[in-house]
Amino acid sequence: MSEHIVSRYDDELKDVQRRIAEMGGIAERLVDLSVTALTRIDTVMANTVIMEDRRLDEIQRQCEEEAIRIIARRQPMALDLREVIGAMRISNDLERIGDLAKNNAKRVLALDGQFQSKRFMTGVEHMAELSLAQLKDVLDAYATRDVHQAFEVWKRDADIDSMYTSLFRELLTYMMEDPRNISLCTHLLFCAKNIERIGDHTTNIAETVHYVVTGEALTQDRPKQDESSVTTVTYADN
Amino acid sequence: MSEHIVSRYDDELKDVQRRIAEMGGIAERLVDLSVTALTRIDTVMANTVIMEDRRLDEIQRQCEEEAIRIIARRQPMALDLREVIGAMRISNDLERIGDLAKNNAKRVLALDGQFQSKRFMTGVEHMAELSLAQLKDVLDAYATRDVHQAFEVWKRDADIDSMYTSLFRELLTYMMEDPRNISLCTHLLFCAKNIERIGDHTTNIAETVHYVVTGEALTQDRPKQDESSVTTVTYADN
Repeated sequence: MSEHIVSRYDDELKDVQRRIAEMGGIAERLVDLSVTALTRIDTVMANTVIMEDRRLDEIQRQCEEEAIRIIARRQPMALDLREVIGAMRISNDLERIGDLAKNNAKRVLALDGQFQSKRFMTGVEHMAELSLAQLKDVLDAYATRDVHQAFEVWKRDADIDSMYTSLFRELLTYMMEDPRNISLCTHLLFCAKNIERIGDHTTNIAETVHYVVTGEALTQDRPKQDESSVTTVTYADN
Repeated sequence: MSEHIVSRYDDELKDVQRRIAEMGGIAERLVDLSVTALTRIDTVMANTVIMEDRRLDEIQRQCEEEAIRIIARRQPMALDLREVIGAMRISNDLERIGDLAKNNAKRVLALDGQFQSKRFMTGVEHMAELSLAQLKDVLDAYATRDVHQAFEVWKRDADIDSMYTSLFRELLTYMMEDPRNISLCTHLLFCAKNIERIGDHTTNIAETVHYVVTGEALTQDRPKQDESSVTTVTYADN
């Protein structure tokens, strides 16, 4: 390849990576805003999340189109091909993270004016803080192609899953205490599930960083501690 | 390209498509089994789903590796490239459908021995029937590269979303009627949500069929009728 072509190709790859960095910034912001909107039942902030998520969808489409164009025109091999495939995967995960933040924001609209209790929010807030920290770390790991940092993020996902399982039990107990809690706690259960899913997409990104850098899939079994699906709380009739 | 190479390339593409067809068959079976397991609270059947989902994960990994190998070695263009990209996307969606069926199966294990009522199951069963019919149709559309059939599937997803929204309201009402319903109905809410997500992945597949055949993305706004996120039921204290 002539130097001229190589340099244009490099520019194209960098352009895709620049879009991923932009998507990462927006996704972080949406996760952060959606949880603040939830804990304050702030519908203005919730509507901002819903609006801004569109931008994420738009960049994701551009990113994917650009990646496919690079494959078709430049026929990348080895590391370059992994970079392009990796960018497609990560842009997908970031777009899904935006959708999940948007879904939480929509629930704020449902909860506006409903019976509320601050104490129910604490667990969701803690889960969100942890998942946001994980998201920041994995985006750093991608930016610096740091496999070790990616692996640390990947391992820590089990903590989010454990928090989710105990929060599931807690919210079910609140519902049984007082039927007026049912609507709020059901939406909070789904918010918590969305945050747990954000954690899963963050773990996917960690796996992609590993694949891009090493060319190998992370073969260990995923650290999975979400036991909520097999958890119930039995109502004790007093 | 020599005829010999072209024919090996064709074989590789067909091999990927054969794997997708196998995945489609397994995904249909898992969705079907998981719902029957749920309506009968049949833990043996539920465990079968959990076991068989591993096979789906395994084929998905093979499928993706094979697709990347084809891109690297054969440098496909135009329709061939779309076929490979399409196969990667569809295998991803089918793998996720398997995960969602597995999650519903896990909930059967949680509900075993809990307070149950047949009448709560009807709505989930109907949703599942519709989403299974959609999945079959979209796999047909993929097998025959039928854009019109894919578009019909795509449009009908709105029906699943509407069913989900009314089921959400119904299950919340049951919880408010009697706190002994809370555990069961919460799990059924998540099962319904999982089926709604299966519908979304089916819609993704319809979009991919459209992309593979026409080279264009489906640009219309997605038919989205899931209003459950903004739905609440207020407890009327009698």
